Amino acid sequence: MDDQPGFKRCAVIGIGLVGASFALAAKTAGLVERVVGVARRQRTLRAALEVGAADEVSTDPAGAVHGCDLVYLAVPVGAMAQIMQAIARNLQNGCIVTDAGSVKAEVCEAAEQFLPRRAFFVGGHPMAGSERRGPENASADLFCGHRYFLCPTELSTPQSLQRLEALVRAIGAEPVVMDAAEHDAVVALTSHLPHAAAAALIDTVVAELGPQRAAKFSGRGLYDTTRIAGGSEELWADILLANARNIAGALEAYADALLEYRNALARRDSRALVELLRRGRQAREGYMENFGAGGSEDR
Amino acid sequence: MDDQPGFKRCAVIGIGLVGASFALAAKTAGLVERVVGVARRQRTLRAALEVGAADEVSTDPAGAVHGCDLVYLAVPVGAMAQIMQAIARNLQNGCIVTDAGSVKAEVCEAAEQFLPRRAFFVGGHPMAGSERRGPENASADLFCGHRYFLCPTELSTPQSLQRLEALVRAIGAEPVVMDAAEHDAVVALTSHLPHAAAAALIDTVVAELGPQRAAKFSGRGLYDTTRIAGGSEELWADILLANARNIAGALEAYADALLEYRNALARRDSRALVELLRRGRQAREGYMENFGAGGSEDR
Repeated sequence: MDDQPGFKRCAVIGIGLVGASFALAAKTAGLVERVVGVARRQRTLRAALEVGAADEVSTDPAGAVHGCDLVYLAVPVGAMAQIMQAIARNLQNGCIVTDAGSVKAEVCEAAEQFLPRRAFFVGGHPMAGSERRGPENASADLFCGHRYFLCPTELSTPQSLQRLEALVRAIGAEPVVMDAAEHDAVVALTSHLPHAAAAALIDTVVAELGPQRAAKFSGRGLYDTTRIAGGSEELWADILLANARNIAGALEAYADALLEYRNALARRDSRALVELLRRGRQAREGYMENFGAGGSEDR
Repeated sequence: MDDQPGFKRCAVIGIGLVGASFALAAKTAGLVERVVGVARRQRTLRAALEVGAADEVSTDPAGAVHGCDLVYLAVPVGAMAQIMQAIARNLQNGCIVTDAGSVKAEVCEAAEQFLPRRAFFVGGHPMAGSERRGPENASADLFCGHRYFLCPTELSTPQSLQRLEALVRAIGAEPVVMDAAEHDAVVALTSHLPHAAAAALIDTVVAELGPQRAAKFSGRGLYDTTRIAGGSEELWADILLANARNIAGALEAYADALLEYRNALARRDSRALVELLRRGRQAREGYMENFGAGGSEDR
Protein backbone atom coordinates (compact mmCIF):
# COMPACT_ATOMS: atom_id res chain seq x y z
CA MET A 1 0.00 0.00 0.00
CA ASP A 2 2.92 2.33 0.67
CA ASP A 3 3.81 2.11 -3.01
CA GLN A 4 0.62 3.92 -3.98
CA PRO A 5 0.68 7.68 -3.99
CA GLY A 6 -2.84 8.04 -2.67
CA PHE A 7 -4.64 7.35 0.60
CA LYS A 8 -7.73 5.24 1.10
CA ARG A 9 -9.13 6.80 4.23
CA CYS A 10 -8.22 10.09 5.82
CA ALA A 11 -9.39 11.52 9.13
CA VAL A 12 -9.48 15.32 9.14
CA ILE A 13 -9.54 16.31 12.79
CA GLY A 14 -10.79 19.88 13.14
CA ILE A 15 -12.63 20.11 9.83
CA GLY A 16 -12.93 23.90 9.65
CA LEU A 17 -11.93 26.11 6.75
CA VAL A 18 -8.41 24.69 6.35
CA GLY A 19 -9.25 21.08 7.14
CA ALA A 20 -12.25 21.03 4.82
CA SER A 21 -10.29 22.78 2.06
CA PHE A 22 -7.59 20.14 2.38
CA ALA A 23 -10.20 17.38 2.17
CA LEU A 24 -11.83 18.90 -0.91
CA ALA A 25 -8.47 19.51 -2.58
CA ALA A 26 -7.10 16.04 -1.83
CA LYS A 27 -10.30 14.35 -3.02
CA THR A 28 -10.44 16.49 -6.15
CA ALA A 29 -6.82 15.54 -6.88
CA GLY A 30 -7.78 11.88 -6.49
CA LEU A 31 -5.23 11.31 -3.72
CA VAL A 32 -7.70 10.64 -0.93
CA GLU A 33 -10.63 8.28 -1.41
CA ARG A 34 -12.70 8.77 1.69
CA VAL A 35 -12.68 11.43 4.41
CA VAL A 36 -14.00 11.19 7.93
CA GLY A 37 -14.45 14.68 9.32
CA VAL A 38 -14.10 15.37 13.02
CA ALA A 39 -15.24 18.46 14.92
CA ARG A 40 -16.86 19.23 18.24
CA ARG A 41 -19.92 20.96 16.85
CA GLN A 42 -22.66 19.23 14.91
CA ARG A 43 -23.16 22.38 12.85
CA THR A 44 -19.57 22.17 11.62
CA LEU A 45 -19.97 18.48 10.78
CA ARG A 46 -23.20 19.10 8.87
CA ALA A 47 -21.49 21.82 6.84
CA ALA A 48 -18.53 19.51 6.11
CA LEU A 49 -20.93 16.89 4.78
CA GLU A 50 -22.92 19.44 2.80
CA VAL A 51 -19.92 20.84 0.94
CA GLY A 52 -18.64 17.33 0.24
CA ALA A 53 -15.48 17.71 2.31
CA ALA A 54 -16.41 14.74 4.49
CA ASP A 55 -18.01 11.42 3.55
CA GLU A 56 -18.72 10.60 7.16
CA VAL A 57 -18.39 12.56 10.37
CA SER A 58 -17.69 12.07 14.05
CA THR A 59 -17.18 14.06 17.22
CA ASP A 60 -14.69 11.44 18.47
CA PRO A 61 -11.09 11.83 17.22
CA ALA A 62 -9.95 8.52 18.68
CA GLY A 63 -12.71 6.57 16.97
CA ALA A 64 -12.32 8.43 13.69
CA VAL A 65 -8.71 7.42 13.05
CA HIS A 66 -9.54 3.68 13.03
CA GLY A 67 -8.57 2.24 9.67
CA CYS A 68 -7.10 5.52 8.41
CA ASP A 69 -3.85 5.60 6.43
CA LEU A 70 -3.75 9.41 6.71
CA VAL A 71 -4.63 11.70 9.61
CA TYR A 72 -4.75 15.47 9.06
CA LEU A 73 -4.76 17.55 12.26
CA ALA A 74 -6.24 20.99 11.73
CA VAL A 75 -7.02 21.98 15.31
CA PRO A 76 -5.44 24.99 17.08
CA VAL A 77 -1.75 24.52 17.85
CA GLY A 78 -2.47 24.55 21.57
CA ALA A 79 -4.82 21.57 21.19
CA MET A 80 -2.50 19.33 19.12
CA ALA A 81 -0.81 17.48 22.00
CA GLN A 82 -4.11 16.52 23.55
CA ILE A 83 -5.50 15.23 20.26
CA MET A 84 -2.34 13.23 19.63
CA GLN A 85 -2.68 11.57 23.03
CA ALA A 86 -6.30 10.80 22.28
CA ILE A 87 -5.67 9.16 18.90
CA ALA A 88 -2.31 7.46 19.57
CA ARG A 89 -3.70 4.06 20.57
CA ASN A 90 -5.90 3.72 17.53
CA LEU A 91 -3.43 4.69 14.80
CA GLN A 92 -2.94 1.81 12.41
CA ASN A 93 0.43 0.52 11.33
CA GLY A 94 2.08 2.80 8.75
CA CYS A 95 -0.46 5.61 9.14
CA ILE A 96 0.91 9.01 8.14
CA VAL A 97 -0.06 11.85 10.48
CA THR A 98 0.46 15.49 9.62
CA ASP A 99 -0.90 18.81 10.83
CA ALA A 100 -1.72 22.28 9.57
CA GLY A 101 -0.50 24.36 12.51
CA SER A 102 1.24 27.70 11.99
CA VAL A 103 3.94 26.89 14.56
CA LYS A 104 5.95 23.71 14.19
CA ALA A 105 8.54 22.97 16.90
CA GLU A 106 6.00 22.46 19.69
CA VAL A 107 3.75 20.30 17.50
CA CYS A 108 6.64 18.17 16.21
CA GLU A 109 7.90 17.63 19.77
CA ALA A 110 4.42 16.59 20.88
CA ALA A 111 4.25 14.10 18.01
CA GLU A 112 7.61 12.61 18.97
CA GLN A 113 6.43 12.34 22.55
CA PHE A 114 2.90 11.04 22.09
CA LEU A 115 2.59 9.20 18.77
CA PRO A 116 3.50 5.51 18.44
CA ARG A 117 6.51 4.38 16.39
CA ARG A 118 4.25 2.44 14.06
CA ALA A 119 2.97 5.75 12.69
CA PHE A 120 4.77 8.45 10.76
CA PHE A 121 4.61 12.16 11.50
CA VAL A 122 5.65 15.10 9.35
CA GLY A 123 4.74 18.61 10.55
CA GLY A 124 2.95 20.83 8.05
CA HIS A 125 2.11 24.50 7.65
CA PRO A 126 0.09 25.54 4.62
CA MET A 127 0.71 29.25 4.10
CA ALA A 128 -2.86 29.81 3.08
CA GLY A 129 -5.96 30.90 4.86
CA SER A 130 -8.90 33.20 4.73
CA GLU A 131 -10.57 35.68 7.00
CA ARG A 132 -13.68 33.51 6.73
CA ARG A 133 -14.05 30.37 8.77
CA GLY A 134 -15.83 27.03 8.74
CA PRO A 135 -16.26 24.25 6.16
CA GLU A 136 -18.96 26.31 4.42
CA ASN A 137 -16.18 28.65 3.22
CA ALA A 138 -13.81 25.86 2.23
CA SER A 139 -12.33 25.71 -1.24
CA ALA A 140 -10.36 23.06 -3.11
CA ASP A 141 -8.25 25.96 -4.44
CA LEU A 142 -7.23 27.35 -1.04
CA PHE A 143 -3.66 26.06 -1.29
CA CYS A 144 -3.15 26.74 -5.00
CA GLY A 145 0.01 28.70 -5.67
CA HIS A 146 0.93 28.95 -1.99
CA ARG A 147 3.88 27.58 -0.08
CA TYR A 148 3.36 24.59 2.18
CA PHE A 149 6.06 23.98 4.78
CA LEU A 150 6.86 20.39 5.74
CA CYS A 151 9.00 19.72 8.81
CA PRO A 152 10.42 16.21 9.26
CA THR A 153 10.60 14.68 12.74
CA GLU A 154 12.03 11.57 14.38
CA LEU A 155 8.81 9.90 13.20
CA SER A 156 9.43 10.82 9.56
CA THR A 157 11.00 8.63 6.89
CA PRO A 158 12.13 9.67 3.43
CA GLN A 159 9.14 7.81 2.01
CA SER A 160 6.53 9.37 4.31
CA LEU A 161 7.98 12.80 3.54
CA GLN A 162 7.89 12.09 -0.21
CA ARG A 163 4.29 10.97 -0.07
CA LEU A 164 3.31 14.21 1.68
CA GLU A 165 5.33 16.29 -0.77
CA ALA A 166 3.45 14.60 -3.61
CA LEU A 167 0.16 15.29 -1.84
CA VAL A 168 1.07 18.96 -1.32
CA ARG A 169 1.94 19.31 -5.01
CA ALA A 170 -1.27 17.57 -5.99
CA ILE A 171 -3.35 20.16 -4.13
CA GLY A 172 -1.52 22.92 -6.05
CA ALA A 173 0.89 24.09 -3.36
CA GLU A 174 4.67 24.29 -3.31
CA PRO A 175 6.24 22.04 -0.67
CA VAL A 176 9.15 23.62 1.24
CA VAL A 177 10.93 21.14 3.51
CA MET A 178 12.63 22.73 6.49
CA ASP A 179 13.62 22.26 10.10
CA ALA A 180 10.82 23.00 12.57
CA ALA A 181 12.91 25.28 14.79
CA GLU A 182 14.12 27.28 11.80
CA HIS A 183 10.57 27.53 10.48
CA ASP A 184 9.38 28.99 13.77
CA ALA A 185 12.25 31.48 14.03
CA VAL A 186 11.49 32.74 10.52
CA VAL A 187 7.70 33.00 10.75
CA ALA A 188 8.06 34.77 14.11
CA LEU A 189 9.51 37.63 12.06
CA THR A 190 7.55 37.34 8.82
CA SER A 191 4.09 36.55 10.15
CA HIS A 192 3.70 36.68 13.92
CA LEU A 193 5.57 39.94 14.58
CA PRO A 194 3.58 41.79 11.86
CA HIS A 195 0.35 40.62 13.46
CA ALA A 196 1.29 41.88 16.92
CA ALA A 197 2.69 45.08 15.35
CA ALA A 198 -0.56 45.79 13.51
CA ALA A 199 -2.75 45.05 16.54
CA ALA A 200 -0.60 47.17 18.87
CA LEU A 201 -0.50 50.03 16.34
CA ILE A 202 -4.24 50.36 15.81
CA ASP A 203 -4.81 49.91 19.54
CA THR A 204 -2.34 52.73 20.30
CA VAL A 205 -3.94 55.10 17.78
CA VAL A 206 -7.56 54.34 18.65
CA ALA A 207 -6.91 54.42 22.41
CA GLU A 208 -5.59 57.95 21.98
CA LEU A 209 -8.02 59.36 19.42
CA GLY A 210 -11.08 57.12 19.44
CA PRO A 211 -12.20 55.27 16.30
CA GLN A 212 -13.94 58.22 14.67
CA ARG A 213 -11.07 60.66 14.79
CA ALA A 214 -8.59 57.93 13.93
CA ALA A 215 -10.59 57.21 10.78
CA LYS A 216 -11.27 60.83 9.88
CA PHE A 217 -7.64 61.83 10.10
CA SER A 218 -6.03 58.85 8.43
CA GLY A 219 -5.47 57.70 4.90
CA ARG A 220 -4.69 54.38 3.29
CA GLY A 221 -1.39 54.22 5.20
CA LEU A 222 -2.86 53.42 8.60
CA TYR A 223 -5.62 51.41 6.95
CA ASP A 224 -3.28 49.01 5.16
CA THR A 225 -0.73 48.91 7.95
CA THR A 226 -3.28 47.60 10.44
CA ARG A 227 -5.45 45.43 8.17
CA ILE A 228 -4.36 42.14 9.72
CA ALA A 229 -5.26 43.27 13.24
CA GLY A 230 -8.82 42.17 12.46
CA GLY A 231 -7.98 38.48 12.96
CA SER A 232 -9.44 36.30 15.70
CA GLU A 233 -7.75 36.87 19.06
CA GLU A 234 -8.18 33.23 20.11
CA LEU A 235 -6.55 31.94 16.93
CA TRP A 236 -3.66 34.40 17.19
CA ALA A 237 -3.09 34.03 20.94
CA ASP A 238 -2.79 30.30 20.30
CA ILE A 239 -0.19 30.90 17.57
CA LEU A 240 1.79 33.53 19.48
CA LEU A 241 1.97 31.43 22.64
CA ALA A 242 3.19 28.39 20.74
CA ASN A 243 6.07 30.48 19.36
CA ALA A 244 6.50 32.70 22.42
CA ARG A 245 10.28 32.76 22.73
CA ASN A 246 10.94 33.64 19.09
CA ILE A 247 8.23 36.30 19.00
CA ALA A 248 9.36 37.89 22.26
CA GLY A 249 12.81 38.29 20.70
CA ALA A 250 11.36 39.72 17.50
CA LEU A 251 9.24 42.20 19.48
CA GLU A 252 12.31 43.40 21.36
CA ALA A 253 14.25 43.91 18.13
CA TYR A 254 11.32 45.83 16.66
CA ALA A 255 10.82 48.00 19.75
CA ASP A 256 14.55 48.79 19.64
CA ALA A 257 14.26 49.83 15.99
CA LEU A 258 11.36 52.14 16.85
CA LEU A 259 13.35 53.70 19.67
CA GLU A 260 16.13 54.48 17.19
CA TYR A 261 13.58 56.67 15.42
CA ARG A 262 12.51 58.20 18.70
CA ASN A 263 16.12 58.98 19.62
CA ALA A 264 16.94 60.48 16.23
CA LEU A 265 13.85 62.71 16.56
CA ALA A 266 14.75 63.71 20.12
CA ARG A 267 18.20 64.78 18.86
CA ARG A 268 16.62 66.44 15.77
CA ASP A 269 19.18 64.36 13.91
CA SER A 270 18.19 64.74 10.28
CA ARG A 271 21.00 62.58 8.92
CA ALA A 272 20.23 59.69 11.26
CA LEU A 273 16.55 59.93 10.38
CA VAL A 274 17.17 59.93 6.62
CA GLU A 275 19.44 56.93 7.11
CA LEU A 276 16.81 55.01 9.12
CA LEU A 277 14.12 55.77 6.55
CA ARG A 278 16.47 54.89 3.69
CA ARG A 279 17.14 51.52 5.31
CA GLY A 280 13.40 50.94 5.59
CA ARG A 281 12.76 51.94 1.96
CA GLN A 282 15.58 49.76 0.66
CA ALA A 283 14.48 46.82 2.79
CA ARG A 284 10.97 47.25 1.37
CA GLU A 285 12.26 47.40 -2.19
CA GLY A 286 14.44 44.30 -1.77
CA TYR A 287 11.53 42.52 -0.18
CA MET A 288 9.11 43.49 -2.95
CA GLU A 289 11.51 42.37 -5.69
CA ASN A 290 11.53 38.92 -4.16
CA PHE A 291 7.88 38.73 -3.15
CA GLY A 292 6.51 37.77 -6.55
CA ALA A 293 2.89 37.87 -7.53
CA GLY A 294 0.04 36.88 -5.31
CA GLY A 295 1.03 36.20 -1.73
CA SER A 296 -0.90 34.16 0.75
CA GLU A 297 -2.92 35.22 3.69
CA ASP A 298 -0.79 34.38 6.73
CA ARG A 299 -1.98 31.94 9.24
CA MET B 1 -11.75 92.21 -5.30
CA ASP B 2 -12.20 90.40 -2.00
CA ASP B 3 -15.87 89.95 -2.83
CA GLN B 4 -15.05 87.69 -5.72
CA PRO B 5 -14.62 84.02 -4.97
CA GLY B 6 -11.79 83.56 -7.47
CA PHE B 7 -8.19 84.67 -7.80
CA LYS B 8 -6.60 86.47 -10.74
CA ARG B 9 -3.02 85.41 -10.36
CA CYS B 10 -1.59 82.60 -8.25
CA ALA B 11 2.04 81.72 -7.63
CA VAL B 12 2.57 78.03 -6.96
CA ILE B 13 5.95 77.76 -5.29
CA GLY B 14 7.26 74.24 -5.57
CA ILE B 15 5.18 73.14 -8.55
CA GLY B 16 5.67 69.38 -8.17
CA LEU B 17 2.93 66.77 -8.07
CA VAL B 18 0.81 68.48 -5.42
CA GLY B 19 1.41 72.08 -6.52
CA ALA B 20 0.71 71.30 -10.17
CA SER B 21 -2.38 69.28 -9.27
CA PHE B 22 -3.65 72.21 -7.24
CA ALA B 23 -3.02 74.57 -10.17
CA LEU B 24 -4.81 72.29 -12.61
CA ALA B 25 -7.72 71.76 -10.24
CA ALA B 26 -8.13 75.45 -9.38
CA LYS B 27 -7.93 76.49 -13.04
CA THR B 28 -10.37 73.77 -14.08
CA ALA B 29 -12.76 74.98 -11.37
CA GLY B 30 -12.44 78.51 -12.73
CA LEU B 31 -11.23 79.90 -9.41
CA VAL B 32 -7.73 80.81 -10.55
CA GLU B 33 -7.14 82.68 -13.78
CA ARG B 34 -3.41 82.57 -14.22
CA VAL B 35 -0.67 80.51 -12.55
CA VAL B 36 3.01 81.30 -12.28
CA GLY B 37 4.88 78.12 -11.42
CA VAL B 38 8.08 78.21 -9.40
CA ALA B 39 10.65 75.45 -9.02
CA ARG B 40 14.42 75.17 -8.90
CA ARG B 41 14.79 72.84 -11.86
CA GLN B 42 14.08 73.85 -15.45
CA ARG B 43 12.89 70.32 -16.17
CA THR B 44 10.17 70.68 -13.55
CA LEU B 45 9.14 74.06 -14.94
CA ARG B 46 8.97 72.72 -18.51
CA ALA B 47 6.76 69.86 -17.33
CA ALA B 48 4.49 72.30 -15.45
CA LEU B 49 4.06 74.33 -18.65
CA GLU B 50 3.52 71.22 -20.77
CA VAL B 51 0.71 69.82 -18.63
CA GLY B 52 -0.94 73.24 -18.47
CA ALA B 53 -0.48 73.67 -14.71
CA ALA B 54 1.51 76.88 -15.18
CA ASP B 55 0.98 79.74 -17.62
CA GLU B 56 4.38 81.19 -16.90
CA VAL B 57 7.32 79.94 -14.86
CA SER B 58 10.19 81.21 -12.79
CA THR B 59 13.02 79.96 -10.61
CA ASP B 60 12.66 83.02 -8.35
CA PRO B 61 9.99 82.82 -5.63
CA ALA B 62 10.36 86.47 -4.63
CA GLY B 63 9.84 87.71 -8.16
CA ALA B 64 6.99 85.31 -8.87
CA VAL B 65 4.69 86.59 -6.13
CA HIS B 66 4.57 90.11 -7.59
CA GLY B 67 0.99 90.97 -8.44
CA CYS B 68 -0.39 87.70 -7.04
CA ASP B 69 -3.59 87.58 -4.98
CA LEU B 70 -2.92 83.95 -4.06
CA VAL B 71 0.35 82.20 -3.18
CA TYR B 72 0.39 78.42 -2.79
CA LEU B 73 3.47 77.02 -1.05
CA ALA B 74 4.12 73.38 -1.93
CA VAL B 75 7.76 73.04 -0.92
CA PRO B 76 9.00 70.64 1.79
CA VAL B 77 7.95 71.68 5.30
CA GLY B 78 11.56 72.30 6.26
CA ALA B 79 11.91 74.86 3.44
CA MET B 80 8.76 76.89 4.19
CA ALA B 81 10.31 79.46 6.57
CA GLN B 82 13.05 80.32 4.11
CA ILE B 83 10.59 80.75 1.24
CA MET B 84 8.36 82.94 3.40
CA GLN B 85 11.30 85.19 4.23
CA ALA B 86 12.18 85.39 0.54
CA ILE B 87 8.69 86.37 -0.65
CA ALA B 88 7.57 88.56 2.30
CA ARG B 89 8.66 91.89 0.85
CA ASN B 90 6.90 91.35 -2.46
CA LEU B 91 3.52 90.16 -1.24
CA GLN B 92 0.80 92.53 -2.37
CA ASN B 93 -1.80 94.00 -0.08
CA GLY B 94 -4.53 91.44 0.72
CA CYS B 95 -2.71 88.50 -0.85
CA ILE B 96 -3.78 85.16 0.59
CA VAL B 97 -0.92 82.77 1.28
CA THR B 98 -1.46 79.10 2.07
CA ASP B 99 0.63 75.94 1.99
CA ALA B 100 0.33 72.22 1.39
CA GLY B 101 2.65 70.93 4.11
CA SER B 102 1.83 67.77 6.07
CA VAL B 103 2.78 69.39 9.38
CA LYS B 104 1.15 72.63 10.42
CA ALA B 105 2.30 74.21 13.71
CA GLU B 106 5.84 74.93 12.55
CA VAL B 107 4.63 76.34 9.22
CA CYS B 108 1.94 78.50 10.82
CA GLU B 109 4.45 79.87 13.34
CA ALA B 110 6.87 80.71 10.53
CA ALA B 111 4.09 82.54 8.70
CA GLU B 112 3.23 84.55 11.82
CA GLN B 113 6.90 85.41 12.21
CA PHE B 114 7.90 86.17 8.65
CA LEU B 115 4.88 87.25 6.62
CA PRO B 116 3.71 90.88 6.59
CA ARG B 117 0.40 91.92 8.18
CA ARG B 118 -0.89 93.11 4.81
CA ALA B 119 -1.09 89.46 3.72
CA PHE B 120 -3.30 86.66 5.03
CA PHE B 121 -2.09 83.19 5.90
CA VAL B 122 -4.09 80.02 6.47
CA GLY B 123 -2.17 76.75 6.81
CA GLY B 124 -3.30 73.88 4.61
CA HIS B 125 -2.81 70.13 4.41
CA PRO B 126 -4.45 68.29 1.53
CA MET B 127 -4.71 64.66 2.56
CA ALA B 128 -3.94 63.49 -0.91
CA GLY B 129 -0.84 62.42 -2.70
CA SER B 130 0.66 59.81 -4.90
CA GLU B 131 3.74 57.66 -4.94
CA ARG B 132 4.63 59.34 -8.24
CA ARG B 133 6.20 62.76 -8.30
CA GLY B 134 6.55 65.80 -10.53
CA PRO B 135 4.09 67.94 -12.52
CA GLU B 136 4.04 65.30 -15.27
CA ASN B 137 2.03 63.11 -12.88
CA ALA B 138 -0.27 65.89 -11.72
CA SER B 139 -4.03 65.52 -11.91
CA ALA B 140 -6.89 67.96 -11.48
CA ASP B 141 -8.65 65.13 -9.62
CA LEU B 142 -5.93 64.58 -7.02
CA PHE B 143 -7.93 66.19 -4.21
CA CYS B 144 -11.35 64.85 -5.19
CA GLY B 145 -13.12 63.19 -2.30
CA HIS B 146 -10.25 63.76 0.12
CA ARG B 147 -10.04 65.82 3.29
CA TYR B 148 -8.19 69.10 3.20
CA PHE B 149 -7.19 70.53 6.59
CA LEU B 150 -7.15 74.31 7.02
CA CYS B 151 -5.47 75.80 10.07
CA PRO B 152 -6.18 79.48 10.86
CA THR B 153 -3.36 81.66 12.19
CA GLU B 154 -2.94 85.19 13.57
CA LEU B 155 -2.76 86.19 9.91
CA SER B 156 -6.14 84.66 9.08
CA THR B 157 -9.48 86.45 8.92
CA PRO B 158 -12.92 84.89 8.65
CA GLN B 159 -13.06 86.06 5.06
CA SER B 160 -9.64 84.69 4.02
CA LEU B 161 -10.55 81.38 5.62
CA GLN B 162 -13.92 81.34 3.83
CA ARG B 163 -12.31 82.02 0.48
CA LEU B 164 -9.92 79.11 0.98
CA GLU B 165 -12.74 76.84 2.13
CA ALA B 166 -14.61 77.71 -1.07
CA LEU B 167 -11.48 76.99 -3.09
CA VAL B 168 -10.97 73.65 -1.38
CA ARG B 169 -14.58 72.69 -2.09
CA ALA B 170 -14.22 73.82 -5.69
CA ILE B 171 -11.33 71.40 -6.24
CA GLY B 172 -13.48 68.58 -4.92
CA ALA B 173 -12.05 68.24 -1.43
CA GLU B 174 -13.68 68.47 1.99
CA PRO B 175 -12.34 71.36 4.08
CA VAL B 176 -11.75 70.55 7.75
CA VAL B 177 -10.86 73.61 9.82
CA MET B 178 -8.78 72.85 12.87
CA ASP B 179 -6.10 74.13 15.19
CA ALA B 180 -2.55 73.59 13.89
CA ALA B 181 -1.24 72.06 17.12
CA GLU B 182 -4.17 69.66 17.32
CA HIS B 183 -3.72 68.74 13.67
CA ASP B 184 -0.09 67.82 14.28
CA ALA B 185 -0.83 65.79 17.41
CA VAL B 186 -3.45 63.80 15.51
CA VAL B 187 -1.50 63.13 12.29
CA ALA B 188 1.53 62.12 14.38
CA LEU B 189 -0.59 59.12 15.36
CA THR B 190 -2.60 58.51 12.18
CA SER B 191 0.02 59.14 9.54
CA HIS B 192 3.56 59.70 10.81
CA LEU B 193 3.70 56.90 13.38
CA PRO B 194 2.42 54.32 10.84
CA HIS B 195 5.14 55.39 8.42
CA ALA B 196 7.92 54.96 10.98
CA ALA B 197 6.32 51.71 12.18
CA ALA B 198 6.24 50.25 8.66
CA ALA B 199 9.81 51.30 7.86
CA ALA B 200 11.16 49.96 11.17
CA LEU B 201 9.24 46.69 10.75
CA ILE B 202 10.50 45.79 7.28
CA ASP B 203 13.99 46.90 8.28
CA THR B 204 13.89 44.62 11.34
CA VAL B 205 12.68 41.61 9.33
CA VAL B 206 14.99 42.08 6.34
CA ALA B 207 18.04 42.81 8.53
CA GLU B 208 17.50 39.45 10.22
CA LEU B 209 16.49 37.28 7.26
CA GLY B 210 17.60 39.07 4.10
CA PRO B 211 15.10 40.14 1.45
CA GLN B 212 14.81 36.74 -0.23
CA ARG B 213 13.94 34.72 2.85
CA ALA B 214 11.72 37.53 4.14
CA ALA B 215 9.76 37.37 0.90
CA LYS B 216 9.71 33.58 0.62
CA PHE B 217 8.39 33.10 4.13
CA SER B 218 5.82 35.87 4.27
CA GLY B 219 2.30 36.35 3.04
CA ARG B 220 0.12 39.36 2.39
CA GLY B 221 0.30 40.31 6.08
CA LEU B 222 3.87 41.57 6.08
CA TYR B 223 3.40 42.86 2.53
CA ASP B 224 0.48 45.12 3.37
CA THR B 225 1.77 46.09 6.79
CA THR B 226 4.96 47.55 5.32
CA ARG B 227 3.68 48.94 2.01
CA ILE B 228 4.14 52.59 2.96
CA ALA B 229 7.80 52.07 3.89
CA GLY B 230 8.59 52.54 0.20
CA GLY B 231 8.20 56.34 0.43
CA SER B 232 11.00 58.83 -0.14
CA GLU B 233 13.27 59.15 2.90
CA GLU B 234 13.95 62.85 2.24
CA LEU B 235 10.23 63.67 2.08
CA TRP B 236 9.48 61.69 5.23
CA ALA B 237 12.49 62.84 7.25
CA ASP B 238 11.32 66.39 6.53
CA ILE B 239 7.82 65.57 7.78
CA LEU B 240 8.95 63.61 10.85
CA LEU B 241 11.40 66.32 11.93
CA ALA B 242 8.78 69.04 11.62
CA ASN B 243 6.54 67.08 13.98
CA ALA B 244 9.33 65.59 16.10
CA ARG B 245 7.92 66.05 19.58
CA ASN B 246 4.50 64.54 18.80
CA ILE B 247 5.97 61.63 16.89
CA ALA B 248 8.54 60.86 19.58
CA GLY B 249 5.67 60.58 22.05
CA ALA B 250 3.66 58.39 19.69
CA LEU B 251 6.66 56.11 19.13
CA GLU B 252 7.09 55.69 22.88
CA ALA B 253 3.44 54.79 23.35
CA TYR B 254 3.69 52.29 20.51
CA ALA B 255 6.91 50.71 21.80
CA ASP B 256 5.24 50.39 25.22
CA ALA B 257 2.28 48.63 23.61
CA LEU B 258 4.62 46.18 21.87
CA LEU B 259 6.42 45.46 25.13
CA GLU B 260 3.06 44.57 26.70
CA TYR B 261 2.89 41.78 24.13
CA ARG B 262 6.47 40.80 24.88
CA ASN B 263 5.77 40.67 28.61
CA ALA B 264 2.59 38.64 28.19
CA LEU B 265 4.54 36.16 26.03
CA ALA B 266 7.40 35.99 28.54
CA ARG B 267 4.85 35.14 31.25
CA ARG B 268 3.05 32.71 28.91
CA ASP B 269 -0.02 34.69 29.97
CA SER B 270 -2.73 33.49 27.62
CA ARG B 271 -5.45 35.67 29.13
CA ALA B 272 -3.40 38.85 28.85
CA LEU B 273 -2.50 37.98 25.26
CA VAL B 274 -6.09 37.31 24.24
CA GLU B 275 -7.05 40.61 25.85
CA LEU B 276 -4.33 42.55 24.00
CA LEU B 277 -5.29 40.98 20.67
CA ARG B 278 -8.99 41.56 21.38
CA ARG B 279 -8.28 45.24 21.98
CA GLY B 280 -6.42 45.38 18.67
CA ARG B 281 -9.21 43.62 16.78
CA GLN B 282 -11.90 45.83 18.29
CA ALA B 283 -9.87 48.97 17.62
CA ARG B 284 -9.50 47.85 14.00
CA GLU B 285 -13.22 47.14 13.69
CA GLY B 286 -14.21 50.51 15.16
CA TYR B 287 -11.70 52.20 12.91
CA MET B 288 -12.96 50.42 9.78
CA GLU B 289 -16.58 51.24 10.54
CA ASN B 290 -15.67 54.92 10.52
CA PHE B 291 -13.17 54.85 7.68
CA GLY B 292 -15.66 54.92 4.85
CA ALA B 293 -14.90 54.18 1.23
CA GLY B 294 -11.79 55.29 -0.55
CA GLY B 295 -9.13 56.72 1.69
CA SER B 296 -6.33 59.02 0.66
CA GLU B 297 -2.68 58.29 0.31
CA ASP B 298 -1.07 59.97 3.32
CA ARG B 299 1.39 62.73 2.89
